[in-house]
Amino acid sequence: MNITMLEKGQDKKMNADSKILSGLNLVPGPTLVPEKIREIYSRQWPSPDLDPDFAQTYKRAASALGQLLGLKPNSCLTPEDPGQVVIMSGEGMVALWAAVKSMIRPGDRVLAIDNGIFGRGIGEMAASCGAEVEFLSADYSQAPDLPRLSELVESFQPTMVTAVHCETPTGLLNPLGEIAVALRANGWKGIFCVDAVASIGATPVKVEEWEIDICLGGSQKVLSCPPDTSFLYVSQRAWKAAQRCGYQGYDALLPFHKAALTGYFPYTHNWAGVEALATAAETILAQGIEHSYERHAECSRITVEIALELGLDLYPEEALSSPTVTALRVPEDADWDTLNRILIQRGVHFGGSYGHLAGKVFRIGHMGSQADVRLVKKAMDELGEALLDLSDCAGEEP
Amino acid sequence: MNITMLEKGQDKKMNADSKILSGLNLVPGPTLVPEKIREIYSRQWPSPDLDPDFAQTYKRAASALGQLLGLKPNSCLTPEDPGQVVIMSGEGMVALWAAVKSMIRPGDRVLAIDNGIFGRGIGEMAASCGAEVEFLSADYSQAPDLPRLSELVESFQPTMVTAVHCETPTGLLNPLGEIAVALRANGWKGIFCVDAVASIGATPVKVEEWEIDICLGGSQKVLSCPPDTSFLYVSQRAWKAAQRCGYQGYDALLPFHKAALTGYFPYTHNWAGVEALATAAETILAQGIEHSYERHAECSRITVEIALELGLDLYPEEALSSPTVTALRVPEDADWDTLNRILIQRGVHFGGSYGHLAGKVFRIGHMGSQADVRLVKKAMDELGEALLDLSDCAGEEP
Repeated sequence: MNITMLEKGQDKKMNADSKILSGLNLVPGPTLVPEKIREIYSRQWPSPDLDPDFAQTYKRAASALGQLLGLKPNSCLTPEDPGQVVIMSGEGMVALWAAVKSMIRPGDRVLAIDNGIFGRGIGEMAASCGAEVEFLSADYSQAPDLPRLSELVESFQPTMVTAVHCETPTGLLNPLGEIAVALRANGWKGIFCVDAVASIGATPVKVEEWEIDICLGGSQKVLSCPPDTSFLYVSQRAWKAAQRCGYQGYDALLPFHKAALTGYFPYTHNWAGVEALATAAETILAQGIEHSYERHAECSRITVEIALELGLDLYPEEALSSPTVTALRVPEDADWDTLNRILIQRGVHFGGSYGHLAGKVFRIGHMGSQADVRLVKKAMDELGEALLDLSDCAGEEP
Repeated sequence: MNITMLEKGQDKKMNADSKILSGLNLVPGPTLVPEKIREIYSRQWPSPDLDPDFAQTYKRAASALGQLLGLKPNSCLTPEDPGQVVIMSGEGMVALWAAVKSMIRPGDRVLAIDNGIFGRGIGEMAASCGAEVEFLSADYSQAPDLPRLSELVESFQPTMVTAVHCETPTGLLNPLGEIAVALRANGWKGIFCVDAVASIGATPVKVEEWEIDICLGGSQKVLSCPPDTSFLYVSQRAWKAAQRCGYQGYDALLPFHKAALTGYFPYTHNWAGVEALATAAETILAQGIEHSYERHAECSRITVEIALELGLDLYPEEALSSPTVTALRVPEDADWDTLNRILIQRGVHFGGSYGHLAGKVFRIGHMGSQADVRLVKKAMDELGEALLDLSDCAGEEP
């Protein structure tokens, strides 16, 4: 999906939804789903339980997703591989619960890097499963203290350390490579679990080089598929942990250990959804993943540049601003609901934020189909106009 | 989808998948997805997290699904209603795990009606959650012993009794109304949990009259949607049980308690999937649900009649044969794999069975879009020819 198509109305099906077509859609996911992906869902699919071709689609998807994680083609499909990509039917949260519940037993120690709402949340999920959780907390606009991380891993000896690559609520991209080095500095051999739902495909995520054991991805961010599937990279060490836990449930990892190999899945899978993931990942690879990295970086650079010109403040430290989403502080004298109403009247769809940042931070999602320089520029121009409208409104008040 | 459309090739999109179009598809789900439903997925959908209209779609779907369960329109949407319909993102198994994990704590007693592979399976799932499970077992072709059920409920005093309405692996429809009466005969007030995934919409399921507390449904059976969503009816008693358990997870019920009311869902929902459920259920209601019951009953009657004429034996007792799926014994001198190969060569897609019934039972799925008299007759004619081919093959062997 690019702005030219939007402007010229070439995409007839999109015309059906005037709410979206009339607008500049830059919400931080679910992103706009390209015609090519939606067409997959318009097809009739056989039963994945009965048709052996489903396993081929699944393996194609797993291999392509693995390549987005820095793996070689077809190197993540069997229990003998250094790691496997598992695809689940359900929204990204199913993969996150899968990671926590399949890795952790009550009483296990978990160290959660807490410099964002999602990072905090993973720690709380682990606590709800009976884990003893330590938080390495930092200001949500800053990176975690890496020497402190090394110390904590050494002293606390956690079973698992959790991190979020892109904190979408705050537009912060954690320095994952540096975190990985700090973690393992003293020879720690535990499970490193990373939520990379909003970064995979837009910026390097190197699961082998960074010794990531569990790496979560979602369909509806950079891949621009509907929010119906999610996936996880699972290392050999993580499979061993899953075997130790023996967790059973819809979100259990273990039933997927031999799934790609045998074609036997724990439930009726979503064939269209898996084909969509395969197609989306293959499209990124065909265009060159470096091209995707550059496109996202450029959209981020332009968004930040224009925002600063408009006198707005970035929420995260500038060096940590994510290539997929830009989080800006709502100006002190402005009300987000009013600004958002003006933006929507102008056809611009951004996102607010959550928790204690609700009303204080707003977000521009430029990932996947929305990582389009012309779209971003046009939306930022509208933001400038909206801010003028807002100060006009303020002037009119008694 | 009806046979006329298949024959005339009016449905152009289906032509894309020659494997399906060339055949008579009567697998016991996922069923063929009508054009009207697939079109929904070809549309662009806004973010359900940000757009308040999503809650309207969700409520429309819940209300329509509730009506398939015998409820009045819009009577299952708030915590004050006698029960609510909850829609989850994920295949039917997510609803089943949701029911078991949200109702049961370790040590709780569960009585599982075990006259089928799925009925047994639910008991085993409860055991995996630490429940003390008693099985009321019966031959898989027979109904459970109802006086024994009343006695067991009285003596065992389970927290939950589980039953499967339609046992798809064996084509058996349990007498749910009679089971409900037997259960409550001595004033038992526990949780009655029913898996009605393969029956809702095809035959009456009366959650209020039968005092069902949890009733599971899926998208890919009678509703003929893709296998991406599932739903549960949850009674006031079941909500109380969920509050007592406090279970947290992707499949947790509790976060849905006020979801339809507040519009706040525990994850990014699948808007297309929920709209598909709404449309499918509304279509059944618009045509008259009695019409759907009659159509399924007629397809069942014709299938059984022709099967008996062909000299085949029904697997379940004839009075219990399901309106949605007919399970037949593979003739003693025949090999299912060979018969299935001949059927596929003739373009006919039936299903085999599972577990100890694999190779011994095969199944004809005539539910939802496949509950079409002409389709069923044509497929049964082909089955007759295939059986002749099979005996010819046998004659040729040395």
